[in-house]
Amino acid sequence: MGGDHGPEVVVPAALSVLSDSADVDLILVGDRDAIEVELRRRRALPSERLQVRHASQQVEMDELPSQALRAKKDSSMRVAVDLVKEGSADACVSAGNTGALMAIARFLLKTLPGVDRPAICSALPSMDGHTHVLDLGANVESSARHLFEFAVMGSVLASAVDNIPRPRVGLLNIGQEETKGNERVREAARMLADSEIHYIGFVEGDDVYRGNANVIVCDGFVGNVALKSSEGVAHMITHFLRSEFQRNLFTRAAAWIAGPVLRASRTRFDPREYNGASFVGLRGTVVKSHGSADVKAYARAIKEASAEARQKIPERISAQLASMLVDREAM
Amino acid sequence: MGGDHGPEVVVPAALSVLSDSADVDLILVGDRDAIEVELRRRRALPSERLQVRHASQQVEMDELPSQALRAKKDSSMRVAVDLVKEGSADACVSAGNTGALMAIARFLLKTLPGVDRPAICSALPSMDGHTHVLDLGANVESSARHLFEFAVMGSVLASAVDNIPRPRVGLLNIGQEETKGNERVREAARMLADSEIHYIGFVEGDDVYRGNANVIVCDGFVGNVALKSSEGVAHMITHFLRSEFQRNLFTRAAAWIAGPVLRASRTRFDPREYNGASFVGLRGTVVKSHGSADVKAYARAIKEASAEARQKIPERISAQLASMLVDREAM
Repeated sequence: MGGDHGPEVVVPAALSVLSDSADVDLILVGDRDAIEVELRRRRALPSERLQVRHASQQVEMDELPSQALRAKKDSSMRVAVDLVKEGSADACVSAGNTGALMAIARFLLKTLPGVDRPAICSALPSMDGHTHVLDLGANVESSARHLFEFAVMGSVLASAVDNIPRPRVGLLNIGQEETKGNERVREAARMLADSEIHYIGFVEGDDVYRGNANVIVCDGFVGNVALKSSEGVAHMITHFLRSEFQRNLFTRAAAWIAGPVLRASRTRFDPREYNGASFVGLRGTVVKSHGSADVKAYARAIKEASAEARQKIPERISAQLASMLVDREAM
Repeated sequence: MGGDHGPEVVVPAALSVLSDSADVDLILVGDRDAIEVELRRRRALPSERLQVRHASQQVEMDELPSQALRAKKDSSMRVAVDLVKEGSADACVSAGNTGALMAIARFLLKTLPGVDRPAICSALPSMDGHTHVLDLGANVESSARHLFEFAVMGSVLASAVDNIPRPRVGLLNIGQEETKGNERVREAARMLADSEIHYIGFVEGDDVYRGNANVIVCDGFVGNVALKSSEGVAHMITHFLRSEFQRNLFTRAAAWIAGPVLRASRTRFDPREYNGASFVGLRGTVVKSHGSADVKAYARAIKEASAEARQKIPERISAQLASMLVDREAM
């Protein structure tokens, strides 16, 4: 049980999900003693809906994925992913080391047939809802074929969790004209235009937040930088607002009066509302919570995982890829 | 004279710079009639400090750079860059088509010795000042050597315009550990660590806004996406704030009271304050204004160009590269 806070956050988040959602059962994986201490502190007990599975090791946040995979056979992360593999759990949620979680998930669950590279997908807030963006950092270099796979996986995910029949899929580029970008994005664009995906063309960085696409596809380097720059700007703006409102008595009074409005706007881009990045392309559901997630944010990640498991995203991705392959062969 | 607004914005911006800065003279390049109409509307006349140079053509915003270069020998953009080439002007500012401006500038001015690829560099707001980021889109694919050149050019620019003896230079990556990222950034990191640049290591997307680096280097695809995502988030947050403050009578009253504070915070990340991206690596100073710049923003771009010309950035970049080459050979 990892992340920056461990059981202190995960246990209350689990209890909150159990009381909200009657159709979700949870297995807490980690140091049994630490988990039971947290449960007792909250006057809760293990039950049929809330089991505890002991794991004697923990992957550190700065541990190399290869090291975590090789040397920590009984890490909470590995035990949790194994529960998905053996069918004892429908999904796994972790706030731990992203690279290690992906390496363990790939190694134990394997990728779906037709998928060469799994990707990390997350919903980001937009003007009128949200946009699913992938890859957010699982891959540092993606070929046209990989970008195409990401588009299929993102389209299936958006369709299932948002109930959109044909999600609008855009390809992230540095201009909208066909001639823009590198050969990889141009080739991926040709593949998407020829497919049954609802491909809307090249989009740019600001389109993530505009809401004109349901899914935006990019390589993991670009996606990771875009995500973190966006977080940086949002943080800076919030910081400037806070410091201006703290300036003097008048501005502090203004802050008090404007407080409810400021909080309402902040809710609309509260990163906690968007916590829970999906690892797509694997034979199982794995959701990554932000390492610094608080109780509310972690509960959101558990709900994301439960929604994805219920929607059987891996099976749907598999079916979509297989049908596209048949189409291609029939052509 | 291009951009989305043409002389309507450029002429008043020029007049405002002339009245603010006694040591700047300007040449307005474009359709003479259109420029003179705008001058008359503002009761101004051409003078020794404000000359008008006629150009019979204009590069369109969606025109292919190759087309603009080949077919428009008398475009305002080309005539303006030519003035720099022949020494009649110390710098050129344009709000027109970025790709065409870069193509024309490369063709007429040429790159500096030791520079393989020019880059686009802009200052972005940070918690405690600003960060120079390059490349923002001149190149879609950059080798380690190119990233290294960008670092040298950005360091020289930051040192000269911000008067920092040894600017802190970071390399944008998707993690801070040495093992992260692709081979290009890792190789560039080794080159920078071996150089006299004050290299601080890998930085991530949110570091652009944190202020821990004076210069952040990345390839043009990544930089462009980071810039536009950031603009998108800032726009979305402003939009949410505005719509929440418009919700009802109470929130509108709150907006009125909080108005000065909100405006003060907005000034700190007002894109107009940061308008003016430098084309670095050329034998001459060229500054690109945002296409949609208003008068204040365009005036800011002119001042950026005049500061760079005064600081002789191209000569300094040349000298720095040459000294590093000598060091390398001496090793």
